[in-house]
Amino acid sequence: MLLERIDSPQQLKQLTLPELPQLAEEIRRFLIEKLSATGGHLAPNLGVVELTLALHYRYNSPNDKLIFDVGHQAYVHKILTGRQGRFDTLRQKNGLCGFVKRNESEHDVWEAGHSSTSLSAAMGMALARDQQGGSNRVIAIIGDGALTGGMALEALNHIGHEKRKLMVVLNDNEMSIAPNVGAIHNYLGKIRSEKLYRKAKDELDWLLRKVPAIGGKLAKTADRVKDSLKTLVAPEGVLFEEFGLKYFGPVDGHDIGKLLEAFKQADCIEGPVLVHVLTTKGKGYSPAEADSHKWHGITGSYKIESGQVVKPVGPPMYTEVFGNALIELAEQDKRIVAITPAMPGGSGLLKFAERFPDRMFDVGIAEQHAATLSAAMAMEGSKPIFAVYSTFLQRAYDQVVHDICRQNLNVVFAIDRAGFVGADGETHQGVYDIAFLRHIPNMVLMMPKNENELRNMMKTAVEYDKGPIAVRYPRVAGTGATFDDVMTPIEIGTWETVREGDYAAVLAIGPMVQVAEEAAELLKREGMNVRVINARFVKPLDEKMLLSLAKEHLPLLVVEEGSVQGGLGSAILEFFALNGIQPASIQLAGVPDIFVEHATIKEQRADCGLTAEAIANRLVSLPGRQRLKAT
Amino acid sequence: MLLERIDSPQQLKQLTLPELPQLAEEIRRFLIEKLSATGGHLAPNLGVVELTLALHYRYNSPNDKLIFDVGHQAYVHKILTGRQGRFDTLRQKNGLCGFVKRNESEHDVWEAGHSSTSLSAAMGMALARDQQGGSNRVIAIIGDGALTGGMALEALNHIGHEKRKLMVVLNDNEMSIAPNVGAIHNYLGKIRSEKLYRKAKDELDWLLRKVPAIGGKLAKTADRVKDSLKTLVAPEGVLFEEFGLKYFGPVDGHDIGKLLEAFKQADCIEGPVLVHVLTTKGKGYSPAEADSHKWHGITGSYKIESGQVVKPVGPPMYTEVFGNALIELAEQDKRIVAITPAMPGGSGLLKFAERFPDRMFDVGIAEQHAATLSAAMAMEGSKPIFAVYSTFLQRAYDQVVHDICRQNLNVVFAIDRAGFVGADGETHQGVYDIAFLRHIPNMVLMMPKNENELRNMMKTAVEYDKGPIAVRYPRVAGTGATFDDVMTPIEIGTWETVREGDYAAVLAIGPMVQVAEEAAELLKREGMNVRVINARFVKPLDEKMLLSLAKEHLPLLVVEEGSVQGGLGSAILEFFALNGIQPASIQLAGVPDIFVEHATIKEQRADCGLTAEAIANRLVSLPGRQRLKAT
Repeated sequence: MLLERIDSPQQLKQLTLPELPQLAEEIRRFLIEKLSATGGHLAPNLGVVELTLALHYRYNSPNDKLIFDVGHQAYVHKILTGRQGRFDTLRQKNGLCGFVKRNESEHDVWEAGHSSTSLSAAMGMALARDQQGGSNRVIAIIGDGALTGGMALEALNHIGHEKRKLMVVLNDNEMSIAPNVGAIHNYLGKIRSEKLYRKAKDELDWLLRKVPAIGGKLAKTADRVKDSLKTLVAPEGVLFEEFGLKYFGPVDGHDIGKLLEAFKQADCIEGPVLVHVLTTKGKGYSPAEADSHKWHGITGSYKIESGQVVKPVGPPMYTEVFGNALIELAEQDKRIVAITPAMPGGSGLLKFAERFPDRMFDVGIAEQHAATLSAAMAMEGSKPIFAVYSTFLQRAYDQVVHDICRQNLNVVFAIDRAGFVGADGETHQGVYDIAFLRHIPNMVLMMPKNENELRNMMKTAVEYDKGPIAVRYPRVAGTGATFDDVMTPIEIGTWETVREGDYAAVLAIGPMVQVAEEAAELLKREGMNVRVINARFVKPLDEKMLLSLAKEHLPLLVVEEGSVQGGLGSAILEFFALNGIQPASIQLAGVPDIFVEHATIKEQRADCGLTAEAIANRLVSLPGRQRLKAT
Repeated sequence: MLLERIDSPQQLKQLTLPELPQLAEEIRRFLIEKLSATGGHLAPNLGVVELTLALHYRYNSPNDKLIFDVGHQAYVHKILTGRQGRFDTLRQKNGLCGFVKRNESEHDVWEAGHSSTSLSAAMGMALARDQQGGSNRVIAIIGDGALTGGMALEALNHIGHEKRKLMVVLNDNEMSIAPNVGAIHNYLGKIRSEKLYRKAKDELDWLLRKVPAIGGKLAKTADRVKDSLKTLVAPEGVLFEEFGLKYFGPVDGHDIGKLLEAFKQADCIEGPVLVHVLTTKGKGYSPAEADSHKWHGITGSYKIESGQVVKPVGPPMYTEVFGNALIELAEQDKRIVAITPAMPGGSGLLKFAERFPDRMFDVGIAEQHAATLSAAMAMEGSKPIFAVYSTFLQRAYDQVVHDICRQNLNVVFAIDRAGFVGADGETHQGVYDIAFLRHIPNMVLMMPKNENELRNMMKTAVEYDKGPIAVRYPRVAGTGATFDDVMTPIEIGTWETVREGDYAAVLAIGPMVQVAEEAAELLKREGMNVRVINARFVKPLDEKMLLSLAKEHLPLLVVEEGSVQGGLGSAILEFFALNGIQPASIQLAGVPDIFVEHATIKEQRADCGLTAEAIANRLVSLPGRQRLKAT
């Protein structure tokens, strides 16, 4: 076993070139085995084994900066930089993070979980280096999918302008997370396929070499033509060359020798270079090669031999309920279209895409465009459902303000993974959307207490025609609620009392309603009747109910799985302040002012005091509470 | 006068082609004269006179959709669609909006004030049209500067993929707002300049026509070469063709005949086309042609003959104070670099750029990239000052969360135009930054009460080394405050009592401190002493002072020129709730939950109750107030 000897890039460099393929093989076996217990981003990491080996073999991390875009394909990098022994704890609380993490290793120089940041990071590090007279290499490793993200293209534009020495490694696996879309993808496909083209160009060179023999005017013209041929570029890389980067490739990303040769050539260039590397997602594990979408990220464990993923039993995930409800609604309403920024699977839209291929628009990793596209479709009478993860909607904040809400357009936001996301950790937490959406005029924002209410909220959203409306739902299974026979719209801005009581009232939202009910149950055993309110509309609030709560002088506790700062509780406080009303008392429970790291959702809730026990404890210590009248 | 006869596109279409240049001339005179009184975006509109005429002459608005990117170059469009008579009210309260505005005309089909949204809008309208079986044209008019915005490139990628019929008119004025930067700009320059190139290509064709005569193997190769020549594309348009759009141009944008010819050709194409139009910003008015940056947007009036812009007298604008302070700080601290997304002038950085050309990075219209570039430079030990307007920082919200705050990097945000912006109106209001920044962990957010404090806050920000720190300042002149001899850092999270009193306390921020002092002065005449507190840190709050205010049982009024939802007041309410404290009473004054339209800043404040009189009235009606002890 070579792998056992490798605990740092220095040790890797002591291997001979012919030993590297064996090491690659050992790393693959290591990943397949370790992840079969923990889950994780298997396919992307199997795709970059040789690439990561070649990078660490040639360059000197951490002096040379290896910047992994998205950061979920850095497992091999972690193995090579002293973290082999921690893979049993991958994506677990206090364990190895599933993404690049600076506090784990000096070799982790740039963190990401969102896509398309690596080129800006590389440009910044190159500028700082030049500012300080350094000479280190700066290398961004970015996938073909991430390249469609607007900020990557902004960075490419700046990189081509600045002409600093840096290297972009384009890890082209023809896939990204979803089937890749867009003109850039088609363009890369052309590069991959047009070997014939290169041959024709060689033949043109040959032809022109023959021409001078012809003499006279023809020869003079030929000279000029040859000069201009330098600018007559071949499709290989022309897009990147037009952006001002010198292009190398395409290179077989599973051939370490060829990769090292390409890096050597690229290193001779003074300005920015792009090395186009072709890799296969899931390489070396046949189930993952056969279905790299499914194997992009595995949540639980799997059986190595069969490739069978262990699925949890129980009620369906909210994501799935959303997808099915949307199909039902779309059957009745031809205006409905679905828009996703490269997450058709994650957003539960695969069945919709199959049923309505003409009404499904996957725009690639392009949240800004997706939002404004939705705005324009709504402007022209379509009913766009913009399905997006809470954390990725952050990318489209300005478009939500400026294009959708300011123009007050009938866009439906289906915000998935709202609240804690578990093992993906701090880069993916959906805990800010209430805070960044609720201050935008014209927005309606709601969250269901269970999967049946999600269906009714979808119906509400589709029927609503007074402007933008958002329904957010968590990355968990539903409560097992029975579905109503028909989806029924909910009156905008109405809350629901799900449990009576006069000891105190909990205003809870989403999965916290159930948690609050459990807390109420705990207190009931001790003789305290707590009212539980499903505060399903963050905006508009149920003002009538708030006024009546204040009148009753009930102490209030607001409970939400989202940032306390700017959250639902904050909205309720504002309402009271703006109306000059003081409730008996009001306290807030939610995510405090920190980034919450990877763990299970249950652990994350517990760490933030969002369990039934913690809420029960808060309730008994609320100031201004009235003693229970015995039931 | 032809112009007097034109009140709709129908009337325009009744003119003959030879009459159009005269109309163009009349429109130019009209704009130069009208704007000399009102101010406005003169240069951009002078640049698109012929282009707008040609578009309305050929297409049928509003059935055909004309989508103006940024929307500030639609004055000619407004003239042609029945709004000539309202130009005396341009950018004034209840007057003509300086941007496209749907409630003004059915011909205004897409609103914008932020750049780079038009391609997404066009794509969405084309998809909706095809969904509904329509046949109208969809035309986006976008500047070369706007094309560097990431969302425009995301849209371009999707447009090339979808292959729907739509037209992109690239209005290339070699300028954008600031001198254009980036590889795309260089690329467009190449198209403009490489006429020689085209000649060489013609000669290659000629050469190859001669070759078959040579016979034998040479001839066969030549055939193949000619085939492949079809893919060997010239620099004209190759970037766009690679993105999947058929390219036409470059076309002289001041020649209506040539424009119409290009549109005609482009209309024959079934898929997406790009017509590259060359225009001169400020065309026809020599002061504007000579300095199109200065004339991009004129705030006040100007003298037509001399081109002299009437400047207000009085204290310097905050923007200017920021720029000068930054130079002083950069003289002492070599780590300091400035980053701007295409706003070196608007952000007060022109002198800095002159003094420190190597430490100034204008990245083009690319807020996302600018933010993450700042993060990476900070990571490597530089001290980046990201200078950006509040409204445009919305574009980088995710990068602020995910790249800067989550990694807790020492980026300084210099947030200009925070609060109301006056005549630019609702698309440019800087009233959300408190609400979208204060819930992000690790962020420090402050606002000065006057221009001297701005200088001290700049010093504070540059010396702060515990993470990101933002100073926001308004689009107004300072108060005339004297500068301290040396800039002195302010202790983080400390407020300042600027006026004593025990009738009530106003917690005000930024320019509202002065307004609150005026309110206190008004009440003093009636015997009430109001305390005025400069709540200069939004995050962290001055918790000590808040606790002592609560202990004093003073009724509180929070006053901010920003969204009440999620604003400073909301932060203070949260603090009290999280700590189980109830002040005597607390009320909020700020921008209500609406988009505030164009007017003067003074009018906008008055409309939102942010005048001294309005605040005085609020104060006397605060619940829980104590009666004044006679002074």
